[in-house]
Amino acid sequence: MSTAGQVIRCKAAVAWEAGKPLSIEEVEVAPPQKHEVRIKILFTALCHTDVYYWECKGYTPLFPRILGHEASGIVESVGEGVNDLKPGDHVLPIFTGECKECRHCLSEESNNMCELLRINCDRGVMLADGKTRFSINGKPIYHFVGTSTFSQYTVVHVGQVAKISPTAPLDKVCPISCGICTGFGATVNVAKPKKGQTVAVFGLGAVGLAVSARVCGASRIIAVDVNPRRFEEAKRFGITEFVNPKDYDKPVQEVIVEMTGGGVDRSVECTGSVQAMISAFECVHDGWGVCVLVGVPKKDDAFKTHPMNLLSERTLKGAFYGNYKPRTDIPMVVDKYLNKELGLDMDKFITHSVPFADINKAFDYMLQGIGLRCMIHLDA
Amino acid sequence: MSTAGQVIRCKAAVAWEAGKPLSIEEVEVAPPQKHEVRIKILFTALCHTDVYYWECKGYTPLFPRILGHEASGIVESVGEGVNDLKPGDHVLPIFTGECKECRHCLSEESNNMCELLRINCDRGVMLADGKTRFSINGKPIYHFVGTSTFSQYTVVHVGQVAKISPTAPLDKVCPISCGICTGFGATVNVAKPKKGQTVAVFGLGAVGLAVSARVCGASRIIAVDVNPRRFEEAKRFGITEFVNPKDYDKPVQEVIVEMTGGGVDRSVECTGSVQAMISAFECVHDGWGVCVLVGVPKKDDAFKTHPMNLLSERTLKGAFYGNYKPRTDIPMVVDKYLNKELGLDMDKFITHSVPFADINKAFDYMLQGIGLRCMIHLDA
Ligand SMILES: NC(=O)c1ccc[n+]([C@@H]2O[C@H](COP(=O)([O-])OP(=O)(O)OC[C@H]3O[C@@H](n4cnc5c(N)ncnc54)[C@H](O)[C@@H]3O)[C@@H](O)[C@H]2O)c1
Ligand SMILES: NC(=O)c1ccc[n+]([C@@H]2O[C@H](COP(=O)([O-])OP(=O)(O)OC[C@H]3O[C@@H](n4cnc5c(N)ncnc54)[C@H](O)[C@@H]3O)[C@@H](O)[C@H]2O)c1
Ligand SMILES: [Zn+2]
Ligand SMILES: [Zn+2]
Ligand SMILES: [Zn+2]
Ligand SMILES: [Zn+2]
Repeated sequence: MSTAGQVIRCKAAVAWEAGKPLSIEEVEVAPPQKHEVRIKILFTALCHTDVYYWECKGYTPLFPRILGHEASGIVESVGEGVNDLKPGDHVLPIFTGECKECRHCLSEESNNMCELLRINCDRGVMLADGKTRFSINGKPIYHFVGTSTFSQYTVVHVGQVAKISPTAPLDKVCPISCGICTGFGATVNVAKPKKGQTVAVFGLGAVGLAVSARVCGASRIIAVDVNPRRFEEAKRFGITEFVNPKDYDKPVQEVIVEMTGGGVDRSVECTGSVQAMISAFECVHDGWGVCVLVGVPKKDDAFKTHPMNLLSERTLKGAFYGNYKPRTDIPMVVDKYLNKELGLDMDKFITHSVPFADINKAFDYMLQGIGLRCMIHLDA
Repeated sequence: MSTAGQVIRCKAAVAWEAGKPLSIEEVEVAPPQKHEVRIKILFTALCHTDVYYWECKGYTPLFPRILGHEASGIVESVGEGVNDLKPGDHVLPIFTGECKECRHCLSEESNNMCELLRINCDRGVMLADGKTRFSINGKPIYHFVGTSTFSQYTVVHVGQVAKISPTAPLDKVCPISCGICTGFGATVNVAKPKKGQTVAVFGLGAVGLAVSARVCGASRIIAVDVNPRRFEEAKRFGITEFVNPKDYDKPVQEVIVEMTGGGVDRSVECTGSVQAMISAFECVHDGWGVCVLVGVPKKDDAFKTHPMNLLSERTLKGAFYGNYKPRTDIPMVVDKYLNKELGLDMDKFITHSVPFADINKAFDYMLQGIGLRCMIHLDA
């Protein structure tokens, strides 16, 4: 019996307050409206961005809220005007969308800063009517970045859904919907290291390790993290050297400049720490070095450097979602993964696995810096 | 009778103290040593970089010193090991050199950050022996950026000399040796605006106007300067709109973002003001905007912006000398000028002309923001 057009009651992990453990609740999920899609989420993982908005230190508080954005699932039903998706399609929800109509989506130069659907962490409602599709006894529960995947069913704008091959194993491709694409794309689409070059990677979470795994043509990959536990995991990703800033009295950029006789050719920052952003920039070689920032900063952070560091011909860029156009590019990234052309072993990234009821364990792991992605099974 | 191998006595404008008028003195100019060239300077102009090191506010003081780097002349004699230049060659001295041997000069990715000869404002002596080639009664007079063109004769490292066509009028091509290449190159080599795009230029000196003159394929050129007098001159350079930050209560980047419905496609900063650098960056469009910094900052300046401005896919770069490789590229730039392929009318840049004795007038003009380049005739 089809559930299309009906309210669905299912389990969701609700964040009632900043920093308090999520609680699994029965929520009502309204049917998708015009240009919306209701998705049965099968797998979701925790990305550090979820943790920031759950801790809510220096961000706008918006509670109760259903977090989550790295996920995979199957279309349950579609709203009016949705023509390119149908029930049963395998999909990845994407936190930064692609309307295919605005000047960003149409621009030859822009990637994914879609005017309508770009990431917006402060909006907790759907665009169509400014309301939520989640409620508990009539009380609205806010959305997060338009995806809210910590729920067995969620409603997403069609511009935030990438339709992928039905043969893709949904658990394995789940991290492609955020962490993998973010790090991998920052490397292949933005930093673009050349064969034999030296690369520094700041932060060895899933995002940073997706960078590292991808620069295996590099002659040296220098990984920087303040958590030495990360180094063990990272060894499986082709990293050649490890630097812990805490082991030195001087700024880590100076350490790297010395190690490399002038600086690395490329650096990618995947930490969210503004100090690491500055170090990542200042450790690239003058004349040609390129630094790509990926980490999500705090509201009051300031990136600060002497202008001479720029004048001496360094380049500084930022990248959202690896500069992929989500609906257009992600199906192809998944296909490449299936054809083993991506060069990434997803099993290395999924270090833990928990049933939905234990979702708070995923938060503990990330806060303690244990493992990489923790796969949360929503059906278990 | 050849002067080769002999000390030459000639006139030079010596800066004895920070901010005090230069005084024309008779100086002794030693013969060129190994890999050095002695040049008879015919024309020199004043660039703002000279003024900074003359005022010496927040820079290392090094006096007495012969300033000057934008110039043209004729080789008088060459030192040992100089094979590609001979007396009589027409040349432009270049403040940032090209040794053709270091890894910057050989790198495919680097431009002109030559390890041996990159611009060094704090060095006042020649590389060969750590001594000066200028003296007055045996007292050494320091060099400036390896060029010191405020002298009828100067000694320069061969890597800082571009040999140009003997048919080039030396007065007209003089500004190519700094201001023109800097602004022009920042545009064609670095910012690379596409036809029909919107460009903001900060600072309407010769450097900024070399940018403007070159982006005539742009749909809008928005020029920003705090000196309204500059606007009259600038009208002859194809600028479509003028913005004086002093006319607004809000930061000029906000004004430009509003004027353009989101920001310009490219911006080039040619002021040396760190506030203008920040504005130039923050006024480019998210998703694709590129900002190029050209102005020379103060020692204690800090470029400061929220990392989110980077993360939303803006690019920030700096450029020295328009990213040209000086010895390799400049002869070609001069040829293009001679063939009228550069699209620049040099007469528009040379707004004043003085005999050598009146060199301090050139300083007055620049400090008062009057005119663009003041051509100083060293033989007059
Ligand atoms: N731009 C985007 O589109 C995008 C997408 C996803 C995630 N992100 C951001 O990327 C970052 C990484 O995400 P993740 O899920 O891999 O997080 P993670 O917590 O798993 O990994 C971050 C790593 O950075 C390390 N770190 C923290 N501060 C550091 C410092 N000062 N120096 C060196 N290392 C430091 C931590 O120890 C940790 O190992 C986060 O900021 C996240 O919000 C951005
Ligand atoms: N990167 C390089 O290779 C290179 C080479 C030559 C010159 N420069 C630098 O380029 C800059 C321009 O040189 P120039 O010779 O054209 O100087 P200039 O003095 O002729 O022109 C600078 C202009 O900037 C304007 N200005 C100053 N502060 C401003 C602000 N806050 N906002 C807007 N406008 C402002 C001034 O009014 C002036 O019109 C200088 O900083 C100079 O040192 C750099
Ligand atoms: Zn994420
Ligand atoms: Zn769009
Ligand atoms: Zn100059
Ligand atoms: Zn060199």
